[in-house]
Amino acid sequence: MFNKSIYIKRRQVLKSKFNSGILLFMGNNESPMNYRDNTYHFRQDSTFLYYFGINVPALSAIIDIDENREIIFGAEMTLDELVWMGRQESLKSKCEKCGIDEVQIPGALKSYVEQAEHRGRSVHFLPPYRADNEIKLAALLKIDIEELNTASSVEFVKAVVSQRSVKSEEELIEIDKAASISADIHLNVMQATRPGMYEREVAAAIHQAALASGGNLAYPIILTVNGEILHNHYQGNRLKEGQLVLNDSGVETAGGYASDLTRTFPVSKRFTIEQKDIYEIVLQAYQDASSMLSSGTRYLDIHFQACKSLTLGLKALGLMKGNVEDAVAAGAHTLFFQCGTGHMMGLDVHDMEDLGEQYVGYSDKLKKNTIQFGLKSLRMGKELHPGYVVTVEPGIYFNKELIDRYSASGLFSDFINYPAVEKFRNFGGVRIEDDFVIEEGGARMLGKHLANTVSEIEDIRDSAF
Amino acid sequence: MFNKSIYIKRRQVLKSKFNSGILLFMGNNESPMNYRDNTYHFRQDSTFLYYFGINVPALSAIIDIDENREIIFGAEMTLDELVWMGRQESLKSKCEKCGIDEVQIPGALKSYVEQAEHRGRSVHFLPPYRADNEIKLAALLKIDIEELNTASSVEFVKAVVSQRSVKSEEELIEIDKAASISADIHLNVMQATRPGMYEREVAAAIHQAALASGGNLAYPIILTVNGEILHNHYQGNRLKEGQLVLNDSGVETAGGYASDLTRTFPVSKRFTIEQKDIYEIVLQAYQDASSMLSSGTRYLDIHFQACKSLTLGLKALGLMKGNVEDAVAAGAHTLFFQCGTGHMMGLDVHDMEDLGEQYVGYSDKLKKNTIQFGLKSLRMGKELHPGYVVTVEPGIYFNKELIDRYSASGLFSDFINYPAVEKFRNFGGVRIEDDFVIEEGGARMLGKHLANTVSEIEDIRDSAF
Repeated sequence: MFNKSIYIKRRQVLKSKFNSGILLFMGNNESPMNYRDNTYHFRQDSTFLYYFGINVPALSAIIDIDENREIIFGAEMTLDELVWMGRQESLKSKCEKCGIDEVQIPGALKSYVEQAEHRGRSVHFLPPYRADNEIKLAALLKIDIEELNTASSVEFVKAVVSQRSVKSEEELIEIDKAASISADIHLNVMQATRPGMYEREVAAAIHQAALASGGNLAYPIILTVNGEILHNHYQGNRLKEGQLVLNDSGVETAGGYASDLTRTFPVSKRFTIEQKDIYEIVLQAYQDASSMLSSGTRYLDIHFQACKSLTLGLKALGLMKGNVEDAVAAGAHTLFFQCGTGHMMGLDVHDMEDLGEQYVGYSDKLKKNTIQFGLKSLRMGKELHPGYVVTVEPGIYFNKELIDRYSASGLFSDFINYPAVEKFRNFGGVRIEDDFVIEEGGARMLGKHLANTVSEIEDIRDSAF
Repeated sequence: MFNKSIYIKRRQVLKSKFNSGILLFMGNNESPMNYRDNTYHFRQDSTFLYYFGINVPALSAIIDIDENREIIFGAEMTLDELVWMGRQESLKSKCEKCGIDEVQIPGALKSYVEQAEHRGRSVHFLPPYRADNEIKLAALLKIDIEELNTASSVEFVKAVVSQRSVKSEEELIEIDKAASISADIHLNVMQATRPGMYEREVAAAIHQAALASGGNLAYPIILTVNGEILHNHYQGNRLKEGQLVLNDSGVETAGGYASDLTRTFPVSKRFTIEQKDIYEIVLQAYQDASSMLSSGTRYLDIHFQACKSLTLGLKALGLMKGNVEDAVAAGAHTLFFQCGTGHMMGLDVHDMEDLGEQYVGYSDKLKKNTIQFGLKSLRMGKELHPGYVVTVEPGIYFNKELIDRYSASGLFSDFINYPAVEKFRNFGGVRIEDDFVIEEGGARMLGKHLANTVSEIEDIRDSAF
């Protein structure tokens, strides 16, 4: 938790954007696994964390613009709970630490909202993403659950997005810390991974390190020899010599700030020639894209640059052909690079994804392309500003399903050399990913340097075993 | 997943208990952390696992008693999903493996249920514990969310409980495996724990081992130097010489079967004399209680035996006084032992807790005592039968809040020697817990033997560092 003044300031900025009405914040609750009291680890809502910093379940809050009141609704521990859970800091004290003096019991929220609505004041709320909060909001506001998203406040969403998008110094310190912890973990993984291990064993060690650091994982680990499958959480394979390991894992700090790092390295001590060829293309795209990061540049253009770099490299390798600009304009590169080059990051690994990609990664002038394969998976397109934190994560993925579909239909045959591609059918996938904060005239990578060249990685593998 | 015939048989047994109507099973869905697509690890509903064995999200099922149909409702992967998630076994094939031939799309469930209701047939469903399934059920059955528990089927609950309570051979093998994995982990923890480590570091290693085993944790780890706080998930303390570590942790196998083990050991190589005194009392209670486990015995009587053993030992140590039977009848032991001696275990660590403790741990003849401190936390009271799996987990906890409350009001002053207790104020807590399957004339401990005597534990600590 940051200093009290930070939360007070954040709420002041938010309040200054509204003339009237009530802003309603729903904190998260415990989330059940296989019965109500056997719960997953608690994760607070990020917007609640941002404005109030209190990391406990079953809270909600109101900022009343008209009456200039800030209230947190929640229950103090009962005497019984004290016995079962030990003496803990009171809610009152936690609230004071974020500058909130008014604490009311949970039941008081309903009458507060009803009174406000009775007086014709708007109740602004953010789109819910957890079913328990949907039920609560629906009951509180007398709105059908299916209508909640439509009824949520675009004004509130935009205000939060504009504020959370620009990371302050203290936030950057946290994200930098998360990225450095992740870099250490990735380095350990590169050193400790051996042929014969199961993917899940490597992943378990990452999980351990994240927890031991005092934080947690920021998202489910992707640790796989099948890096070409983008949403791959299967970890039952045994690592074999000659395979590549793709490790996409990041931690969140105790304060909730994320990192998002990917490295790809050989199970053997060295890359094969083919692996090196593909890896170098991805690394070039990573360097080309990250060197473009700067205030004023559209991320969409950085994405296109990454696509062009990949295409250029694949053309040199004989897997693509024809004019590079035309190939990318046609979308031929999507056979190898199906997703976006990056996204915003902060308290969420896909920062503010709950608030809507159109608002977070695009703008009124730049609408998200929701149709074109490749672009519809690009979460970030708009112009960069100082304080934005984004990932850069180009990759090349030899997806068998896609190769079969594209080649069967002769798609992009002007740009793709299918017989050559066929030889890479079982290659897997390569991704390189780091996190950057945008500055005037450039960008700064967050966290420690983590090996990303072929020689750096081979040196680590070589000396490891 | 077990052999197909096992699921077919389980459903046959269930069907034989109903004359008419429809049995509705809600599988679990993905559970969001901080936005919809950033999810916790998936945990299937245990009853769904029991009857169908399919461990993927977003399924539901119907057993239609009248028409003798068994249907699973769920979606096959789309071509797009194939690209993102790789080629996976079809739902159709998964269903065949549990003996279900009829697969329908999720949307078909609604009309099926509506038609059945239209014909006046009962739709039996189990009480939901996840909010997303509450929303689905409410919409499906046109029942208010708050009414779902009342409207759920006691007949269905009782049928499931009677069946899941008696573990079959293949289930016992799974639970035994879970317990052995946990025993190995506990042993490693006893060997690897050192003064100066943080609690979370030890817990992280447990988490790692659970994941590396191919399963997961069965419940959030309790790893604490403050074992007297029963629901203690804080892990920020540094272990100091002279303290006790309480490790309550168990794994679940890939198939979902749990273990639940607790050991308490010294941070130093040896117990102090006080620690040894208290530990021996708990061990005696553990032995007295577990030796009573047998078909035909009421678990409530085993609980009372544990309470008496603890009281006897505390009396010998001078912390309690007076007649032991009277002390336990009055509830004086609850100053030291606030909870129950054990509970059912199986696919859930508190088996079937979602279906209701009254049905799982008690009976029509034996109602749960929901008022008396101590007894109201006893999840299991009823007569044991062969195949029941239960924990035995007595403990002694010096809870400061409770000591202050009891002594301030002079509660149980005939039975408690408060000045003597005061000396143990900062002692912490001791618990010893194992899992047992009930047999005719006795019980068998599940899993490998895990050190539980003072000398066994001291030998391990001694040779560790």
